[in-house]
Amino acid sequence: MTHFPSFAALRTACLDVPPGDAAAAGSAADRNAALTKPPGSLGRLEDLAIWLAQWQARNPPRLDRIEVRVFAGNHGVAARGVSAFPAEVTAQMVANFAAGGAAINQLAAVAGARLRVVPLDLDRPTADFTREPAMDEDAFLHAVTAGYENVPADADLVCLGEMGIGNTTAAAAIAAALFGGGGVRWAGRGTGVDDDGLARKRAAIDMAMKRHAGILGDPLQVAAALGGRELAALLGAALAARRRRIPILIDGFVCTAALAPLALLRADGLAHAMAAHVSAEDAHRALLDLLGLKPLVDLGMRLGEASGAVVAALILRAAVACHAGMATFAEAGVSGKL
Amino acid sequence: MTHFPSFAALRTACLDVPPGDAAAAGSAADRNAALTKPPGSLGRLEDLAIWLAQWQARNPPRLDRIEVRVFAGNHGVAARGVSAFPAEVTAQMVANFAAGGAAINQLAAVAGARLRVVPLDLDRPTADFTREPAMDEDAFLHAVTAGYENVPADADLVCLGEMGIGNTTAAAAIAAALFGGGGVRWAGRGTGVDDDGLARKRAAIDMAMKRHAGILGDPLQVAAALGGRELAALLGAALAARRRRIPILIDGFVCTAALAPLALLRADGLAHAMAAHVSAEDAHRALLDLLGLKPLVDLGMRLGEASGAVVAALILRAAVACHAGMATFAEAGVSGKL
Repeated sequence: MTHFPSFAALRTACLDVPPGDAAAAGSAADRNAALTKPPGSLGRLEDLAIWLAQWQARNPPRLDRIEVRVFAGNHGVAARGVSAFPAEVTAQMVANFAAGGAAINQLAAVAGARLRVVPLDLDRPTADFTREPAMDEDAFLHAVTAGYENVPADADLVCLGEMGIGNTTAAAAIAAALFGGGGVRWAGRGTGVDDDGLARKRAAIDMAMKRHAGILGDPLQVAAALGGRELAALLGAALAARRRRIPILIDGFVCTAALAPLALLRADGLAHAMAAHVSAEDAHRALLDLLGLKPLVDLGMRLGEASGAVVAALILRAAVACHAGMATFAEAGVSGKL
Repeated sequence: MTHFPSFAALRTACLDVPPGDAAAAGSAADRNAALTKPPGSLGRLEDLAIWLAQWQARNPPRLDRIEVRVFAGNHGVAARGVSAFPAEVTAQMVANFAAGGAAINQLAAVAGARLRVVPLDLDRPTADFTREPAMDEDAFLHAVTAGYENVPADADLVCLGEMGIGNTTAAAAIAAALFGGGGVRWAGRGTGVDDDGLARKRAAIDMAMKRHAGILGDPLQVAAALGGRELAALLGAALAARRRRIPILIDGFVCTAALAPLALLRADGLAHAMAAHVSAEDAHRALLDLLGLKPLVDLGMRLGEASGAVVAALILRAAVACHAGMATFAEAGVSGKL
């Protein structure tokens, strides 16, 4: 069962999305201007509070319920030796998530966020996209739907992430398809592949660009042919969040590439999304620039599994606390500017 | 009463400081390498955990007790029209801190940190340093001692900050004295001074450089002649933390300038300190570069009152949670690199 019976239906859903709430944003901006600090002195924290108000459609915004969604999938292209780790690590890490032993478990606890990990047919890797589409339309739309259905309507913020051995190759292929430049531009070391692996990764991307030349102009067909189930689910989750007016934090390179089709289908398709961080994977910075996304932190992280998103969620907590809790100049009896 | 009867005694204390604990750092590095993530994939979070272990002299490090110290002082130079706000705002903001209405109150709560605000003779501004030393030796050493005594021996981390109308002028003067370049290089907009105010600020700094030309080679005399009580207290607190092996987070431009003498007296004088953020005050980036400090975040903040330090403390919490809580590859049964 899927919400979207066809590429066309999904495309329509991606185009038909609500704007943010200008009144809530205006109310937040008014309050921000009255708080006991020099104007602008909290920098991006001020913008974040207003952005959250805009996309939660309320002021003050709140972060009582932060939901982390980590989607996991396996990739046929992994058999081409594009990763430093064997494909069975995807399922092993899902077990590690369930046991509470991964980075994201610790980070979610620090951020007071609820974590759900959604493995997607790990025993059925996508097809090797150097030879055929990674997913057909039906498989892609099912994965999109899995993501869509995993966004609770009452979440205040959703942090998106992924796990999937080989998926930086899929992400690089999507970026190459959408923005050009091939494997040299978009392939990086991922989890730490060596020089030979990097060469194989670049070659796989270049092969895929030739194989799928006919669909490179269609962002959703690109996501199906070159992506993976976890990337499709991320797209579905981001779409659901937008339609339910829930702001989201985008994790790293894979997550950004997975969501890029939304921005190509509609210029403001990611207006409800904030880039949490810029990854040590060089291609991430280039992709963020192309999408006009300014990351919140730059800590050299490149783990995925929503780790960067949840670190950035801490900064959103700081922003909301200041916005909601600070006194105004009038309340505190503090003199204004001379 | 003061711990330091003279500049010479304070200088000796600044020189006679312990190194970090190499064994604890080594133990932390070993554990870090075994955790279920590709090597280096948590980026600076990994370095932070090891750095905390080194300076807490234990592995894993902990952050059970984060202490925030905000020192407040008033400045004679404020009468020269160098700030966008009137001098009475210093005391008004101290009252706002006490009432819980300032940004730092909200941020400390988010970070699970204890806040203490230490006002230093607010009714006795320092002297106008364009005419005479801001503080004589005795007044300076008393303020240093106030900072020194406000660092609890059992703190796991101290976040340092300040409040004082006019104190970016003092900070700029210290930076100019220690690194050259005068008012044009070091004066910025502070809380939002206009063009005329900026010109007055630059002029005040240049006048001070001439007035105090004879002592510019002595970092502690510079701190006394050009700083302020809250800056002196920050220096004392940073010194106390070093001698008690407590890592610290440096807030913005004023805090960095206040601590700079420690790095000039001894090359590793700030090895136990991390720059929390880089301020929107342009001079801050230049000063951090000169001191070899790499800020954790760049959020365009320029509020002071330890706000940037406490935001960065959230990232340290993330680092410690991952380091202490993650499973190792062996524990989780996850395959290593191919």
